Amino acid sequence: MDRLRKQLAFLVEIDKLKGIVRRSKLIDKSRVENDAEHSWHLAMMAIILSEYANEKVDLQKVISMLLIHDLVEIDAGDTYAYDIDGHKDKFEREQKAAERIFNILPEDQASQLYDLWIEFEKSETPEARFAAAIDRLEPLLLNHYNGGATWKENHITSEMVLNKNKFIQEGSEALWEMAQELIRKSVQDGILKP
Amino acid sequence: MDRLRKQLAFLVEIDKLKGIVRRSKLIDKSRVENDAEHSWHLAMMAIILSEYANEKVDLQKVISMLLIHDLVEIDAGDTYAYDIDGHKDKFEREQKAAERIFNILPEDQASQLYDLWIEFEKSETPEARFAAAIDRLEPLLLNHYNGGATWKENHITSEMVLNKNKFIQEGSEALWEMAQELIRKSVQDGILKP
Repeated sequence: MDRLRKQLAFLVEIDKLKGIVRRSKLIDKSRVENDAEHSWHLAMMAIILSEYANEKVDLQKVISMLLIHDLVEIDAGDTYAYDIDGHKDKFEREQKAAERIFNILPEDQASQLYDLWIEFEKSETPEARFAAAIDRLEPLLLNHYNGGATWKENHITSEMVLNKNKFIQEGSEALWEMAQELIRKSVQDGILKP
Repeated sequence: MDRLRKQLAFLVEIDKLKGIVRRSKLIDKSRVENDAEHSWHLAMMAIILSEYANEKVDLQKVISMLLIHDLVEIDAGDTYAYDIDGHKDKFEREQKAAERIFNILPEDQASQLYDLWIEFEKSETPEARFAAAIDRLEPLLLNHYNGGATWKENHITSEMVLNKNKFIQEGSEALWEMAQELIRKSVQDGILKP
């Protein structure tokens, strides 16, 4: 029962992800999104959009990656996409967090999840590249449909958005086409500065 | 591009799941849980606890089921586990919701997700039984670790909890053992009425 006790301790610990808030607002603008519901939305996007991945992907692996990729933020906090300083020590902070949080699990599962998280971070496999594309596309979708709430608050320009999101094309050319259209339309609609 | 347009419309629509609140409080008691983060937690539980399923399960199917099973609540709302009246027309309300929401998708994906939802509701396959066990276990975990917040508010007794959760054993005998221990311990700790 020691194994199950560790697994439960991990499942209790990760409830904290529901309290880690991001910058993006929900589409109804009522509040900012948290990491747990963001991770759920990403997994749903992977299920619906997997046909657009540049390379054939193992969908279960993509989904698992997306469900766990933000757990490190329980300790390291959310680093805003356009926070240059915050990105300097991001990996270091998150790696420390990964070691603590995944090691609550039994050893075999701890190393499985750690490896999956590192694979996502390195972005070298088809699954990691597609997962990263989805992770970048979701806040773009929220911002486009909530009237550019976070873009306006943080004085973000279309050039910054294009630059930050161009890596989508490494996971999916088709989704990058669509992302560029959302950005163009956001500028036309006056919700994103040119 | 009509296909991608429909898929995006669905992914925008389901953002509403983040605003559908449940009765269970988070473990830190700060607020009630919403359906999107609940679905994320269930998928994580499935990944960590799949070894305890009574029968061999297709884990990707279990995860997909858990990620989509509450989407119907966007229209039908959350029905509290101990709400007897609410359960009378629950399936009818949810079926209508499923037809509207899944049909935003292209036809092939709409019927895939509808079939997966119906499979979960019928609870006749190993995947559906294990997913249902996880869905029942999560609020029990939250209530045990948040001091029985929702149990106290709604005058719930250990008999009611045992009765509502005994179906866990159809998906996993091992998790049902553990659930009974959590219930016994909750009574001992004075957070659940005997």
